[in-house]
Amino acid sequence: MKVNGRHYRTVWLTGSTVFLIEQNLLPFEFRIHECQTYQETCRAIKTMIVRGAGALGAAAGFAMAQAFLAKADADKAKQEIAATRPTAQNLFYAVERVYNSADPARAAQELADEDAENCRQIGEFGSSLIKDGMKVLTHCNAGWLAFVDHGSALAPVYAAHRGGKNLFVYADETRPRGQGARLTAWELNNEEVPHAIIADNAAAYLMAQGKVDLVLVGADRIAANGDTANKIGTLEKAICAKEYGVPFYVAAPTSTIDRACPDGRAIPLEERPADEMLYQTGQTAGGRLEKVLVCSPGSPALNPAFDVTPAKYITGIITERGIVDPRTAKI
Amino acid sequence: MKVNGRHYRTVWLTGSTVFLIEQNLLPFEFRIHECQTYQETCRAIKTMIVRGAGALGAAAGFAMAQAFLAKADADKAKQEIAATRPTAQNLFYAVERVYNSADPARAAQELADEDAENCRQIGEFGSSLIKDGMKVLTHCNAGWLAFVDHGSALAPVYAAHRGGKNLFVYADETRPRGQGARLTAWELNNEEVPHAIIADNAAAYLMAQGKVDLVLVGADRIAANGDTANKIGTLEKAICAKEYGVPFYVAAPTSTIDRACPDGRAIPLEERPADEMLYQTGQTAGGRLEKVLVCSPGSPALNPAFDVTPAKYITGIITERGIVDPRTAKI
Repeated sequence: MKVNGRHYRTVWLTGSTVFLIEQNLLPFEFRIHECQTYQETCRAIKTMIVRGAGALGAAAGFAMAQAFLAKADADKAKQEIAATRPTAQNLFYAVERVYNSADPARAAQELADEDAENCRQIGEFGSSLIKDGMKVLTHCNAGWLAFVDHGSALAPVYAAHRGGKNLFVYADETRPRGQGARLTAWELNNEEVPHAIIADNAAAYLMAQGKVDLVLVGADRIAANGDTANKIGTLEKAICAKEYGVPFYVAAPTSTIDRACPDGRAIPLEERPADEMLYQTGQTAGGRLEKVLVCSPGSPALNPAFDVTPAKYITGIITERGIVDPRTAKI
Repeated sequence: MKVNGRHYRTVWLTGSTVFLIEQNLLPFEFRIHECQTYQETCRAIKTMIVRGAGALGAAAGFAMAQAFLAKADADKAKQEIAATRPTAQNLFYAVERVYNSADPARAAQELADEDAENCRQIGEFGSSLIKDGMKVLTHCNAGWLAFVDHGSALAPVYAAHRGGKNLFVYADETRPRGQGARLTAWELNNEEVPHAIIADNAAAYLMAQGKVDLVLVGADRIAANGDTANKIGTLEKAICAKEYGVPFYVAAPTSTIDRACPDGRAIPLEERPADEMLYQTGQTAGGRLEKVLVCSPGSPALNPAFDVTPAKYITGIITERGIVDPRTAKI
């Protein structure tokens, strides 16, 4: 997608160098990070220079290819890459696939292209839901920064916008990490999609006023019955959407569906450090990044990072193969 | 209530001096602000050194008394005090009552005492809802800092805690201004009530896990049919509470009930500046207060400050006269 009018992917391989958009600096600075070796790519994954299921998978695949290109010990490299992040299913899958390929660089490239193509397809299917003049609410960042290109929840928005439809996006801030206010808003700004950042508290208010026509969110894992784990707060939006009769769609590639997981109760949910609630990093008037305490000193905080939205609240799941209603169809 | 183990009210008069807790500096610094003249008290109201319906009313009453004590032009003073804040019903009422009294200083003191007593009564009635071991969720700050003492939504919490009941409070952060994370958490910490700050996004997740037994919130205005305007996000909590069968109570003195207002649609809702969403002020590691941009530069934000919770989601309204169910009883 576009940054300052130019097309970028989040991650790519040229020769034996992996290039990554430095996501830790966004939205305040746009910089490309270069990794000459697979070890450098591992470090970039660990330090979250790259994040998001699809982008992580592609980066891990490219790292495995770098190891082969440098004639490094492939088994050792495979282990190291797989150990960078503990829970990213895409990452293990990518490493395995490139490791087992006769042409690692080509396999890694195919993997990245597949991710981008799957997201493009999600955009095509999903854009059929967006009518001219609609207002769409989204939570967290399931945009192209989380994948190789296009994104999942935002792919239909971009496809509809490119197709000439008028639309408006409400980007939930998504506390505590603020991915909506920081990444989704940054993407939408670069693509010139009309939008506004709102407090997570404001969604029901807007729905009650009839100002939200559609909710689109991504997914971290989808159980076999359609229950969906996603960023904390997704459940609240889904409950409110149902209350006001607003269609609520989950957009994700089929690789996000975990058939071994019968329902939401079987999905492990990460609790993250309280400091993410207590402190915020932002830009001072002088342009410096500063971390500040935004809560009462000495008070503890809880930071559940994900919640599970039961399938009964989900109007449909948009994948690269089409749209399915989890309440009536078998996934 | 207690600050560093000592009892304070938010505002009081000694001689002809008005003393106020400087709420702009909380939770990072506790300081008492002194106003020698009614003009100084007006300035303190305008600059939000004092905020919250009950505390504003008391401060305005004391300002009116100061004008009489200084033998200032009482009509001019009355106008000036009434012009400090545009929407605070309590403020106009207080000024009028002190202006028309034969003993202004005594009338102002009575007014402040009544506010504290009403809140104490709310605490008594409300604490009957809190059983030993309960977990209570609250939104925004309807604590003693918003009144003269005790608070509205937090009064039952303090009464139950003083009565020896074990309880735990989840304080919603309450973006964008963070009154939950900053003021409610600060109050609870000083009163040694066990608590944790949570993201506004986490309430439904906790309810789904059965971890919330009761929701207590304040009110900015209650319509004749029980519809309640309160801080943005209250509606989301009410909808989720109903979905999970969690009792949802509004606590407010009867002065908050606007009989001239038939239902929620007649309550005007304030939109506040986008900057409150885009920037956050917090404390640096060096102890300095710094304002930082926390959103993507160039993206617009919307900042609706209040929403209306329809009476159908409200289990009961706790006032100084008792608890009433707005769905079945006439308010």
